[in-house]
Amino acid sequence: MAKIEHVSPLAPASFPELPIVKGVYFAAVEAGVKYAGRKDVMLAVMAPGSSVAGVFTNSATRSAAVLDCQSKIGNDDPSGAAFIVNAGNANAFTGGNGERSVHAVTQAVADCVSLPISRVFSASTGVIGEPLPHDRITGKLQELRDGLSPDRIELAAQAIRTTDTFAKGASKTIEVEGQTVQIAGIAKGSGMIAPDMATMLVYIFTDAKIDRIDLQTFVSELNQVTFNAITVDSDTSTSDTLLVAATGASEVLVTSETLAFKSALHDLMLDLAHQVVRDGEGATKFVEVRVTGAASPAEARIHASAIANSPLVKTAIAGEDPNWGRIVMAIGKSGASADRDKLSIRFDDILVAENGWVSPSYNEDDGAAYMKNQNIVLHVDLGLGVAKDTMWTCDLTHGYITINADYRS
Amino acid sequence: MAKIEHVSPLAPASFPELPIVKGVYFAAVEAGVKYAGRKDVMLAVMAPGSSVAGVFTNSATRSAAVLDCQSKIGNDDPSGAAFIVNAGNANAFTGGNGERSVHAVTQAVADCVSLPISRVFSASTGVIGEPLPHDRITGKLQELRDGLSPDRIELAAQAIRTTDTFAKGASKTIEVEGQTVQIAGIAKGSGMIAPDMATMLVYIFTDAKIDRIDLQTFVSELNQVTFNAITVDSDTSTSDTLLVAATGASEVLVTSETLAFKSALHDLMLDLAHQVVRDGEGATKFVEVRVTGAASPAEARIHASAIANSPLVKTAIAGEDPNWGRIVMAIGKSGASADRDKLSIRFDDILVAENGWVSPSYNEDDGAAYMKNQNIVLHVDLGLGVAKDTMWTCDLTHGYITINADYRS
Repeated sequence: MAKIEHVSPLAPASFPELPIVKGVYFAAVEAGVKYAGRKDVMLAVMAPGSSVAGVFTNSATRSAAVLDCQSKIGNDDPSGAAFIVNAGNANAFTGGNGERSVHAVTQAVADCVSLPISRVFSASTGVIGEPLPHDRITGKLQELRDGLSPDRIELAAQAIRTTDTFAKGASKTIEVEGQTVQIAGIAKGSGMIAPDMATMLVYIFTDAKIDRIDLQTFVSELNQVTFNAITVDSDTSTSDTLLVAATGASEVLVTSETLAFKSALHDLMLDLAHQVVRDGEGATKFVEVRVTGAASPAEARIHASAIANSPLVKTAIAGEDPNWGRIVMAIGKSGASADRDKLSIRFDDILVAENGWVSPSYNEDDGAAYMKNQNIVLHVDLGLGVAKDTMWTCDLTHGYITINADYRS
Repeated sequence: MAKIEHVSPLAPASFPELPIVKGVYFAAVEAGVKYAGRKDVMLAVMAPGSSVAGVFTNSATRSAAVLDCQSKIGNDDPSGAAFIVNAGNANAFTGGNGERSVHAVTQAVADCVSLPISRVFSASTGVIGEPLPHDRITGKLQELRDGLSPDRIELAAQAIRTTDTFAKGASKTIEVEGQTVQIAGIAKGSGMIAPDMATMLVYIFTDAKIDRIDLQTFVSELNQVTFNAITVDSDTSTSDTLLVAATGASEVLVTSETLAFKSALHDLMLDLAHQVVRDGEGATKFVEVRVTGAASPAEARIHASAIANSPLVKTAIAGEDPNWGRIVMAIGKSGASADRDKLSIRFDDILVAENGWVSPSYNEDDGAAYMKNQNIVLHVDLGLGVAKDTMWTCDLTHGYITINADYRS
């Protein structure tokens, strides 16, 4: 692989302090699936009674592990659960061998931690189309089991990285009827990131006691405005997986009515989604695309996506060029409704264009100065209705080309 | 602008020898619309009796000149026609000023060459959102008129370039019932190129005598498999314009039944479309994406487009990496039907993957050697039906980033 010399300039200063989530145990090992000299397999084991919910890529060529998870996600078996994840090989487009590898790994984990195979959820991330050397994973299960500990989530976050330049974690602590609930999550992803279950791998854990169906409802709804609202390069992974486990170990009951929990879960998911963008391959700018005044929510998303995925918008931002004409271009090509004379364009609160032309108040020097910021807000009001949408992306730089033209990820 | 130091490595050795097309006169001047020290405005004047057909961008933010052309394209006025084109400023998203500039330029051309304004078709290409200094164009009309000559088509091709690294021309000479018909065309385009009337500007001239409606039928149909089948960066211009003028000066009658003419026009349009891809910003490889076995023609186009626009496929090609897993990814994300176990992937005639996995006959060294070629064919057979489609694109390189992060085009 191409050497990753730098941590993303948009990375947080350090991995956050994450709380212990009661009922979850983590371990990570060096299994040498592809990478040498670093941890590349993680195991998380959840206590009996845990609920598991998830959302997955809609790719028609999704991986064997994704298909296996989807077949298991809807059951309510009370015996606990496990997540097993490797980095370096996606086990996607590997035919019958792929399915056999998933079965071998999940069966071995089930045997090792005394769970039914239906409660073992696997994921693989890395190169597509190469056979997964699953013996390297199963050969390390004893070491993984011996290493299980409630305080090793950061090691798990490190082990699932591929081209990620930093490990991603986030947490929320809330009070529900006077009792404490913890939520902690980790994510990986930096390229092949586009909204269709938009990250690569995300694992979130809580000690709340919540019914699986309520948990799934929260996750599916919040995914749309968090992970499905980010894009790095418009390419969608074959492995995208978001799993949320609720152990119930806090004994605090959460239902679909517990809005404090929903709000905290939203904030945590958005935090992780933003971290994925901040680790976008080659990223030097974090960009929020805010669309308001659209004719419908679907049209707002189409416009936001066209702007956030436009190579010309993203290279202009990389060059710190306030080239708002390229935003006009992206709106025009999106296919959704737009009226030249009704739309307005702002760089955050700087009015750039309205009434079909550049605003009389706009000063190019202000635009150029604004583009020097690390965080950029592009705001388009279409002037057609009340629907809105927000997406997040990064700029498109030489770094993206270097990583992807040189490295088989 | 960023200095364009190199001519594209995919450029033809030289501008082709183009034949005289009877009844068309060309001129080009330095008007200083934006660029200094080069010709940037071209005028073409067609003889009385000429038919004019055209197709235009579907962008919702199309330029004032495009809107004006669209309002004029359907008439059969016998008094001749003129095309006036400037490079350096797109006159798009310029509000009422844009419309006034188009009127000023087309009225001045009409007066200068004695045509009704309804027969003067204008186009502007370059930066979006800046006022067009149309006086610089109208101030040069006398010089343009004085320079009109049947043999100056190459100067016209040079004048319409923006980031193009070479001028683009092509011609066909055919016999219709023993009589000679000439067709010659020029094009510009290298970035903001995506299929929705996919080039920026194309002008084609023939001395055939052909009814406007027959000509329009040919052009609309052939556009789908030529200019609408190319992409450089998935971004669609606000200015895309293709105009075809038939002067009738050869006195050779062509109708919708004249397949030799249709075939020649197809080949010429495809030649120009390929030249646009070969001048794709930063391009070092010319890529044909061939999709067969699709469930419908529309689905074949969706798959071809997903592959041809994928940044990860295009950076892999730039890196000469036979990373066919990224083709699997692009098929998976496209949204059109695919069955992992029925599709096959080939690098030209090298079978890479089938039956849901890498082919037993595939050798990675063969793939790597193939990727060293300058012309790459990616062939996906979906195994679902008989529909097919072909698109053309280029690789995604550091050159694209350099051009677009540094240069307001």
